[in-house]
Amino acid sequence: MMIGKVVSKVVSTRKYDSLQGLKLLVIQPCYGDKGACFVAADELGAGEGELVLVSTGDTAKHALSKNTPIDAIVVGIIDVEPTIDAAGDAGDKR
Amino acid sequence: MMIGKVVSKVVSTRKYDSLQGLKLLVIQPCYGDKGACFVAADELGAGEGELVLVSTGDTAKHALSKNTPIDAIVVGIIDVEPTIDAAGDAGDKR
Amino acid sequence: MMIGKVVSKVVSTRKYDSLQGLKLLVIQPCYGDKGACFVAADELGAGEGELVLVSTGDTAKHALSKNTPIDAIVVGIIDVEPTIDAAGDAGDKR
Amino acid sequence: MMIGKVVSKVVSTRKYDSLQGLKLLVIQPCYGDKGACFVAADELGAGEGELVLVSTGDTAKHALSKNTPIDAIVVGIIDVEPTIDAAGDAGDKR
Amino acid sequence: MMIGKVVSKVVSTRKYDSLQGLKLLVIQPCYGDKGACFVAADELGAGEGELVLVSTGDTAKHALSKNTPIDAIVVGIIDVEPTIDAAGDAGDKR
Repeated sequence: MMIGKVVSKVVSTRKYDSLQGLKLLVIQPCYGDKGACFVAADELGAGEGELVLVSTGDTAKHALSKNTPIDAIVVGIIDVEPTIDAAGDAGDKR
Repeated sequence: MMIGKVVSKVVSTRKYDSLQGLKLLVIQPCYGDKGACFVAADELGAGEGELVLVSTGDTAKHALSKNTPIDAIVVGIIDVEPTIDAAGDAGDKR
Repeated sequence: MMIGKVVSKVVSTRKYDSLQGLKLLVIQPCYGDKGACFVAADELGAGEGELVLVSTGDTAKHALSKNTPIDAIVVGIIDVEPTIDAAGDAGDKR
Repeated sequence: MMIGKVVSKVVSTRKYDSLQGLKLLVIQPCYGDKGACFVAADELGAGEGELVLVSTGDTAKHALSKNTPIDAIVVGIIDVEPTIDAAGDAGDKR
Repeated sequence: MMIGKVVSKVVSTRKYDSLQGLKLLVIQPCYGDKGACFVAADELGAGEGELVLVSTGDTAKHALSKNTPIDAIVVGIIDVEPTIDAAGDAGDKR
């Protein structure tokens, strides 16, 4: 799963019927290439600026009760940003 | 899902029978590596220059009514480009 | 799907039985990281130097009539390289 | 599979019911882009600072006994960090 | 599929039962980011320093006779490294 921040939402009138009514959020990754924003479906009610946990791939579709062509979904809203040491030193301070 | 712009289309005479008649668009990603163009099937009638929402992976195939070896499909045409703050500041202005 | 050029082929004597007789091509991506060559199965008879359309992931396996552990397959041979504006300007000239 | 180090854990109150009680670890990749941390489920009891082997994609979900929307899971805890020559020379000393 | 070189192996005592007895090799990619080593299961008996063909994703799991949470597997041992022109010129000499 990836951790990202909700930075915007998608407005689309012409789309597959199965996507009607499904909230689509633009997510900015917290780690790696932070410019590589992507879109995830959301049923949990995540708000802009919140940190979320996103599952990608085929498992995303199975999280929904109906068959929908999505490849990413918010599976959790994160309470507090995880504390991580600088890359390379992570976990070495023990 | 990824947001991209339709920049061209694919013309292929020799291909799998199941791909006959299926529109294949070249998509340029809006975020991340913008040079990494890819191809997505389209049943929604997206035109060149339009912004689209693309689902990738196994879910793409299931969006079609017949079994076709595709791994990306346009699932929505985006009305307005999402407003996103510069990477790193996204969502922090609240 | 990805667009790539056939640049070589793979010769492997010791392999899974289900891969026997299946042509395995080395493909160079046309967009993104052009050094990231990969291997795709081919049933269409693509020749070296030709541009091809490649589907990746689980859908590749289902394109074959028998169960084979592949993750990429040539699904079309491209007639003419798509015309794409330089990255960043793509589609903006309209 | 990827090799990574456990560097933190995720705390999330609002999440899918199927994720309740499942430990979610933040993993830092040992190879490639070390800044691209991600989250994996863990049933093996990996502790912070330990090296783990992580499977990603649809196979992760099937490792669990119940249907859960995850895309990465710890499948092994590594005894000793593998010895690898510097990139480019790996295996060439033979 | 990816072409890579076997550069090490993984030793893990605490792991899923279904992984017991399965050889796990560390593979260095031959193309793209050569530092991005990863782990693949091997039933073919590939040795350190050999070039191998690796399938990734859900198809890897189906190559094994039992259900195992892996996402990459060696599907062939390569006889001779494929001859590829320098990136950008590949196939253009015809």
